[in-house]
Amino acid sequence: MPTGRVIGIDAGGTKLLAGVVDERLLVHHRVHRVIRGLGQRKLLEVMVEVVEEARAAEPDVGAVGFGIPSRVDADLGVSEGSVHLPLDGVPFRALMSERLGLPVAVDNDANAALLAESRAGAARGARCAAMVTLGTGIGGGLLIDGELFRGNYGGGAELGHMIVDIDGPECSCGSRGCLEALASGSAIGRLGEEAARKAPDSALGRALGAREELSGRLVTELAHDGDEMARDVLASVGRSLGAGIANIVNIFEPQVVVVGGGAIAGGELLLEPARKVVASRALYPARDRVRIAAAEFGDEAGMVGAALLAMDVVRTPY
Amino acid sequence: MPTGRVIGIDAGGTKLLAGVVDERLLVHHRVHRVIRGLGQRKLLEVMVEVVEEARAAEPDVGAVGFGIPSRVDADLGVSEGSVHLPLDGVPFRALMSERLGLPVAVDNDANAALLAESRAGAARGARCAAMVTLGTGIGGGLLIDGELFRGNYGGGAELGHMIVDIDGPECSCGSRGCLEALASGSAIGRLGEEAARKAPDSALGRALGAREELSGRLVTELAHDGDEMARDVLASVGRSLGAGIANIVNIFEPQVVVVGGGAIAGGELLLEPARKVVASRALYPARDRVRIAAAEFGDEAGMVGAALLAMDVVRTPY
Repeated sequence: MPTGRVIGIDAGGTKLLAGVVDERLLVHHRVHRVIRGLGQRKLLEVMVEVVEEARAAEPDVGAVGFGIPSRVDADLGVSEGSVHLPLDGVPFRALMSERLGLPVAVDNDANAALLAESRAGAARGARCAAMVTLGTGIGGGLLIDGELFRGNYGGGAELGHMIVDIDGPECSCGSRGCLEALASGSAIGRLGEEAARKAPDSALGRALGAREELSGRLVTELAHDGDEMARDVLASVGRSLGAGIANIVNIFEPQVVVVGGGAIAGGELLLEPARKVVASRALYPARDRVRIAAAEFGDEAGMVGAALLAMDVVRTPY
Repeated sequence: MPTGRVIGIDAGGTKLLAGVVDERLLVHHRVHRVIRGLGQRKLLEVMVEVVEEARAAEPDVGAVGFGIPSRVDADLGVSEGSVHLPLDGVPFRALMSERLGLPVAVDNDANAALLAESRAGAARGARCAAMVTLGTGIGGGLLIDGELFRGNYGGGAELGHMIVDIDGPECSCGSRGCLEALASGSAIGRLGEEAARKAPDSALGRALGAREELSGRLVTELAHDGDEMARDVLASVGRSLGAGIANIVNIFEPQVVVVGGGAIAGGELLLEPARKVVASRALYPARDRVRIAAAEFGDEAGMVGAALLAMDVVRTPY
């Protein structure tokens, strides 16, 4: 008898997170891998391995869902272009279902996160919602009139590659001053490092002294520990995030903007300055109506959403 | 016997343009007014006068359509908020139909322009299109899946108030570095003036010497006449416009982005640099698929679109 369980996998620019997810959306048998810098062949091998590892713990899964940081043609299951992983032009669904011998679903990672938040998280009940996931990069998802918006060619809502600082820092996509270059987890690390170099005797400076680079995660931990300089970095990133959210508010007038991804560990240290910028820079009346909330599934929203995609495949075989 | 003719009115931040529009979308009896700086009462009076003037020339019109630079609740016909005209909270449709004794339709001016371009202009046949109108400010309209997108509260797609330069020049909305502050007709005038002050002997400088301020229109005329400095101003504005369009492309993957409003008089002097920025800064594959085109109705797109709104009202009385 089928258990109704599936595997959800969220592949980011740095880390991959997998889990077996049950029908109540509880996660079992989590598997983590660092995938940064892998070539395409090795990356796909790791994805297969991770599924096999989860299946060893829970053999009876009905399907596998993937969230990947790509513009995905959801009808064809093809990864058209990707800034952070070598997945350009990969017929992802066909290839993975062949290798795994299981039905496979695939979508953009932020779309998957939005699916989880809109079905069972911070955007529950909203007809119009936006999701930004702060990780290595920034993913974006949009719900319009209750439906996931995909753009005309399926890769839409790359909110992270919205230019908010026209001559700003280089972005991994080749442009400059994208929201991703200012407010991702990587940006928190980069800005933390810049602050640390200016003040080697601060907690941030001492943290940097002990290693080659500062991660967004470490800067966030130091901020939670009360380090003023680390808090200033998060506040500055939060203000940039707020400019991006102000744009989303002016264009879409969403009921809620959900912020997820690993860097939402910063919580209110990011969201409070972001809300202030939206209140002062977005247009009336939408600015007063929007709710800006942390993902209820935290940094597991993408994985749970990928599992929901897989559950949809089990219910409606393609 | 009804002629099928209606009146279309496009009210911008500076000028109002009205015309009687026939079923083939030909415009007759154009009326212009400068409305900049008028108070609410006077502004509404001028709108009534203009309709009366057009009706004097063509008594048999079935309805009047207005495009106004406001966030409009299209169901209620209420102007919720407006940056450039004193129309906050005005129950526009009810008030105007009462004063005019005719059915009235009202929508955001850029939505009206997009309607004209999508039914009979540069976005004909497109399922996903965006419109930006460059005038006193910048208006924005979006067509998603063949339908005008209004945002969750009806005032959506304020593409002109997308921050593209986070610490940039002040915008009339109270924010900074909005696309409107960098690429509107007003921005062309302001940047032309800055260039003129630096070079009082140039054509721009001499033009400024003769008057108090430079208009975007005059800078554009000098650019068409071959003045290098004026051309540089348009190229710079075109690049800022390109950053805004790159954002639109990354978020929506539209088939076409139509550029209208008075400042589209700059034509390819604006659009060519904009296209280059989109090609280098937007994401593959959407950047290669999008067409960036001047409005076929030119700066009359808003008026013709307002007339189309009026025709829809005649066909489907509310």
